[in-house]
Amino acid sequence: MDLHALTPIEEISRRIAAIRSLMMERSVDALLLTGNANIFYTLGRVVSGWVYIPREGEPLYFVRRPENVRGDNVCHIHKPELIPGELARRGYPLPAGIGLELGGATYLAIERLKAVFPDAAIADASAIMRSARAVKTDFELHLLRRSGIKHAMVYSRIPHLYRTGMSDIELQIEIERVSRLEGCLGQFRIAGDSMELFMANVLAGNNADNPTPYDFAMGGAGLDPSIPVGADGSVIKPGDAVMVDANGNFTGYMTDMTRVFSLGQLAGEAVRAHQCSIDICRELEKVGVPGAKASDLYDTAMRIVKEAGLERHFMGYTQKAGFIGHGVGIEINELPVIAPRSRDVLKEHNVIALEPKFVVPGVGAVGIENTYVVTAGGLERITCAPEQIINLE
Amino acid sequence: MDLHALTPIEEISRRIAAIRSLMMERSVDALLLTGNANIFYTLGRVVSGWVYIPREGEPLYFVRRPENVRGDNVCHIHKPELIPGELARRGYPLPAGIGLELGGATYLAIERLKAVFPDAAIADASAIMRSARAVKTDFELHLLRRSGIKHAMVYSRIPHLYRTGMSDIELQIEIERVSRLEGCLGQFRIAGDSMELFMANVLAGNNADNPTPYDFAMGGAGLDPSIPVGADGSVIKPGDAVMVDANGNFTGYMTDMTRVFSLGQLAGEAVRAHQCSIDICRELEKVGVPGAKASDLYDTAMRIVKEAGLERHFMGYTQKAGFIGHGVGIEINELPVIAPRSRDVLKEHNVIALEPKFVVPGVGAVGIENTYVVTAGGLERITCAPEQIINLE
Repeated sequence: MDLHALTPIEEISRRIAAIRSLMMERSVDALLLTGNANIFYTLGRVVSGWVYIPREGEPLYFVRRPENVRGDNVCHIHKPELIPGELARRGYPLPAGIGLELGGATYLAIERLKAVFPDAAIADASAIMRSARAVKTDFELHLLRRSGIKHAMVYSRIPHLYRTGMSDIELQIEIERVSRLEGCLGQFRIAGDSMELFMANVLAGNNADNPTPYDFAMGGAGLDPSIPVGADGSVIKPGDAVMVDANGNFTGYMTDMTRVFSLGQLAGEAVRAHQCSIDICRELEKVGVPGAKASDLYDTAMRIVKEAGLERHFMGYTQKAGFIGHGVGIEINELPVIAPRSRDVLKEHNVIALEPKFVVPGVGAVGIENTYVVTAGGLERITCAPEQIINLE
Repeated sequence: MDLHALTPIEEISRRIAAIRSLMMERSVDALLLTGNANIFYTLGRVVSGWVYIPREGEPLYFVRRPENVRGDNVCHIHKPELIPGELARRGYPLPAGIGLELGGATYLAIERLKAVFPDAAIADASAIMRSARAVKTDFELHLLRRSGIKHAMVYSRIPHLYRTGMSDIELQIEIERVSRLEGCLGQFRIAGDSMELFMANVLAGNNADNPTPYDFAMGGAGLDPSIPVGADGSVIKPGDAVMVDANGNFTGYMTDMTRVFSLGQLAGEAVRAHQCSIDICRELEKVGVPGAKASDLYDTAMRIVKEAGLERHFMGYTQKAGFIGHGVGIEINELPVIAPRSRDVLKEHNVIALEPKFVVPGVGAVGIENTYVVTAGGLERITCAPEQIINLE
């Protein structure tokens, strides 16, 4: 299998160039990447191995598995201890400083790589890669837009999936199936080890107010203490809000989208909060231009919430989330972070999800989430399902 | 929510005692655990936080989220730097040596915890926890047996899910749905960062011979270069073997089971290889007693394979896996490892999956996988679906 059959070499070169300009800024001689997300980014496919990016010269792909990957800069090795010898053989100098995935790989994995380059100063490649990946190329934007289109097609089917008497998890399972048939890859990549979610978070009624261990915007008790998040098996009742936040990974790049359904008419407070969420998105779509501070977006949202007198319900009731948005791409929690103390500044072609949500006791969770491309003209929405609450009855 | 409503305190105490005996052996004063699998093991539910296990005295549960967890030894904190002060306040000495999850947590996470205990010697808690968790308690065996029963119920439905003209992924999606309706939690926990699989590996025909980057026993090209494993969208053809290895996590504890289906009659070589896999399992069920060496199990399997003249096909054709079995539990890749150079020795109440599989070009993958409890009388099978190839026609 030839590597560049999957992602054009020009595209890979563009990404490597972006990474290198950050390496220059931080005076890092070389990166050695090992995580699946970063390997996918720099190679166009996942392999098991190590991607070596020097400041000058071609990147080298050290591949452990699979054994049938071919390409000019591919070198098959079974352990990282062989890398310095291979570098020397190809005329690459040993790096004086090397960036490793300190925020992604395990302590033992990093200690092993440090021993491979005993004289090199160690830098954090995770931070460099997070910054590089935050600004998407046109190729990546194309994949994200394709995910958004398929994601919206799945949501358009949801009203047809509901049957009287269904529980939250029964509805979720039918959404999962339709989503998979539409091409959803299932895999839900999250940076860091601690967050877990399977395919979707479907929150009906009061379950939305059950707090979780995970740093998601919304909660839910889940079905089992081994994964306490999301649907808890409750039958959907008249007057319940049903919030659907389902996996949008159709292309290796994920869009993030939330919509709300209802069984019958929702209480007025919930309807008002849902409209407030839409209003916040409309306003942030205007102010979300390159150069805007992420913290200013948060403050703008909070001002609208306070004007509506809905602060008590915003981003949770019993337990609150501390952000209203986040970058998305290969992973669901990329940069920038839209939070009150975020120092991130929006850049052109960041892709962000905004999710100003509310929890109304007795009703459930309301509000929308969209994925946007940051453009000079403001935020371009790429998750275009209808935003109003749709009655399942 | 009271913590011990979920898992009886006696059960937690039993697990802590097992961990402590390993801490004694390795002269570790205390453990500080952070990964979801180890938190679930020592607490009975997943929280975000840090579990502190001293050699003497009660374990302490430092919880960041959710905020509503209550219990005698629960202390709500938002960052690990507060742990030494809380220990002092409760009369716990600072540990001279502390075990951290060096093989599970990221380098930056471990460096942060090392700075919290600047004078302590650092040991590897990951290795201790892997050893402790490899021997299951009766409570855990009960959960594993329950997973096995539900897992077999799902497999009994598979012949009814096939429709003429289906692709591998279409069949997989229907298996996923039935599995979820049966109570499968979906989450597929894998120790380490590098392996990824969504819900199931369904391999039809020649796709079984496509090698993957991941250290699974079998491969498959997958649907996208971002997750190159498993079903590739091929329509199932007459003469194809269809191997199904689907998620068995129904209780937080996973059973692992593989069965083979066919479209019409398979070529004789494949039928013979499938029977060889069953024969290997029957033989290993007898010799898999406490005290048996894992490498001897591997050698026994290899002897049977060689006698049958099937070595070329064993554990892959284009790319081979280097093991025939592995421990299972909260994670899919626990101890012991059944491989030629494994130093593991079977212990009573280890739970292992054995998967002697074959790839026959032109037909696909054949062979079975079962999950077993190691008992004095040999291996007790807990995945009891029929083992013969079932014709889908």
